[in-house]
Amino acid sequence: MKVLIIGGGGLVGQKLARALAARETLRGAPISSLVLADVIDPAQVDAPFEVQTVTCDIADPASVASVIDADTDVIYLLAAIVSGQAEEDMTLGYQINMMGTMNVLERCRELASKPVVVFTSSIAVYGGEVADPIIDDSFLNPQTSYGAQKAIGELLINDYSRKGIVDGRGFRLPTISVRPGKPNRAASGFMSSIFREPLNGQEAVCPVDPDFPHYYLSPRKCIENLIKGAEIPAQDLGKNRCMMMPGRMWTIDQMIEAMRNVCGPEPEKLIRWEEQPEILAIVKGWRFDLRPEKALRLGLTADDSFEDNIRYYLEDDKPVV
Amino acid sequence: MKVLIIGGGGLVGQKLARALAARETLRGAPISSLVLADVIDPAQVDAPFEVQTVTCDIADPASVASVIDADTDVIYLLAAIVSGQAEEDMTLGYQINMMGTMNVLERCRELASKPVVVFTSSIAVYGGEVADPIIDDSFLNPQTSYGAQKAIGELLINDYSRKGIVDGRGFRLPTISVRPGKPNRAASGFMSSIFREPLNGQEAVCPVDPDFPHYYLSPRKCIENLIKGAEIPAQDLGKNRCMMMPGRMWTIDQMIEAMRNVCGPEPEKLIRWEEQPEILAIVKGWRFDLRPEKALRLGLTADDSFEDNIRYYLEDDKPVV
Repeated sequence: MKVLIIGGGGLVGQKLARALAARETLRGAPISSLVLADVIDPAQVDAPFEVQTVTCDIADPASVASVIDADTDVIYLLAAIVSGQAEEDMTLGYQINMMGTMNVLERCRELASKPVVVFTSSIAVYGGEVADPIIDDSFLNPQTSYGAQKAIGELLINDYSRKGIVDGRGFRLPTISVRPGKPNRAASGFMSSIFREPLNGQEAVCPVDPDFPHYYLSPRKCIENLIKGAEIPAQDLGKNRCMMMPGRMWTIDQMIEAMRNVCGPEPEKLIRWEEQPEILAIVKGWRFDLRPEKALRLGLTADDSFEDNIRYYLEDDKPVV
Repeated sequence: MKVLIIGGGGLVGQKLARALAARETLRGAPISSLVLADVIDPAQVDAPFEVQTVTCDIADPASVASVIDADTDVIYLLAAIVSGQAEEDMTLGYQINMMGTMNVLERCRELASKPVVVFTSSIAVYGGEVADPIIDDSFLNPQTSYGAQKAIGELLINDYSRKGIVDGRGFRLPTISVRPGKPNRAASGFMSSIFREPLNGQEAVCPVDPDFPHYYLSPRKCIENLIKGAEIPAQDLGKNRCMMMPGRMWTIDQMIEAMRNVCGPEPEKLIRWEEQPEILAIVKGWRFDLRPEKALRLGLTADDSFEDNIRYYLEDDKPVV
């Protein structure tokens, strides 16, 4: 079992690599090697099997060809230009998020080896005037370029799977919180930083009102779901191989209350409330009343409480000072 | 008012050009010039304004740049690789149907002139396990490469419109029947030829059962709707600029009965019934229980009866022997 993680240097890629190293198997077979590919050479991960770290630009077909060969059994396609940046730089967003996905699938067509491809889509594919609640059959009406590019990626994953070129499956990730590390250029960045920074004794800015509702998942559950996602039998996926990944809807207020329940009243004092119109313009179009029935039926799960999200951050990610 | 029809040599493009020549105006302004662009030099059309015919390969950005300039007010993007051919030649289908659409929109981004772009999508965007009836909020789950490419085109039209680059609007065309002329490589070709050929005294093959239901529109109504489609005020389109074009569901039997009502019992004797698995594989995935409420609300219309479709063919298209 040879696994490739494209986007292997990112938060999700690195956590996934460590989880694969710990479990040693995927889809019922021992992992023999893991390739971590990213636009900047990814950090190495300790594992009981060979781990290669390589640079790869998915906008370049030759670069994609250098990381996928006929022995690649499972490809995690996590690489993306995130929402804020894709909105600012339309050219780069389409190059990476649309053409990059196309290049990976076209490379698989050259090889005729039919790898499992796990694609990370986003709940940013939802939006517009589509009626609530969002169910598995709801129309995708993204209101950002990032969402449009992810919706296009889903169509490509489905079409190349239908043609027998890959065994694809796509999961629309909820907003991941609490993300460790530094902020990235995602418009959703504050949804982690307002917990992460205060828990680390630093100030953070919340650009939305306390009653702003959104749909969340912890990194730990996300990784569990991505591993299960690779293992779902193809015949259980039906004619649409892309689906919501389960998450839960919380308001900012409810999440702060959860932080208080776990860590006491001090951290929240470090949150500064300051409206940011350019962030609001993106996130107010996002949907939060989501019903991920297909994914739940297939065994994927959400967090039980936001208290868990806070605890997972403390257990898995909080820097030791 | 300068109008460009990309795909101006095809059935719809030529009929649209003649309709524009007859009405002389579009969006309330007199048409000053019309450019008909196609991969093969389109037939000339008589008009009270200048009509240019040019060759254009939309897969080539330079070729696209040669037909769109800052004065182009309305672009009809009708060019496409049709369903049967896109299924056989995946590379060509994606080059024309996805990248061709992207090239047109990217050219508009260079110019910053914000033309109206009328995009012809298809009801082939519907399929899979999505629950009937198909409404405006139904998920697009195409089961052909053609359908996937059209769904991608819709996402691009919406995203480039949202960014203010074009004033786009897309219409999912029902199967057009009765199409004049020779069969093309669309899997739906028989849905016209089983009427057209018998009405012209020739034999035709029906590859599906008489109770096969599908969703149809006459060429005459399609052209009327494409003209109305360009004229819908942008603010009435909402956050999803693509919608079903109204049509009607008929079974093959009902359509044959309509032909009998208009032309007597002779023509249908020329229909030979012969199952064709490769055609069936494509068309059986298509949906027919469609509710085009948004388009009807915006003033687009369907045929009143299939008798009308037969009459329109006799009036508009039947070759004079």
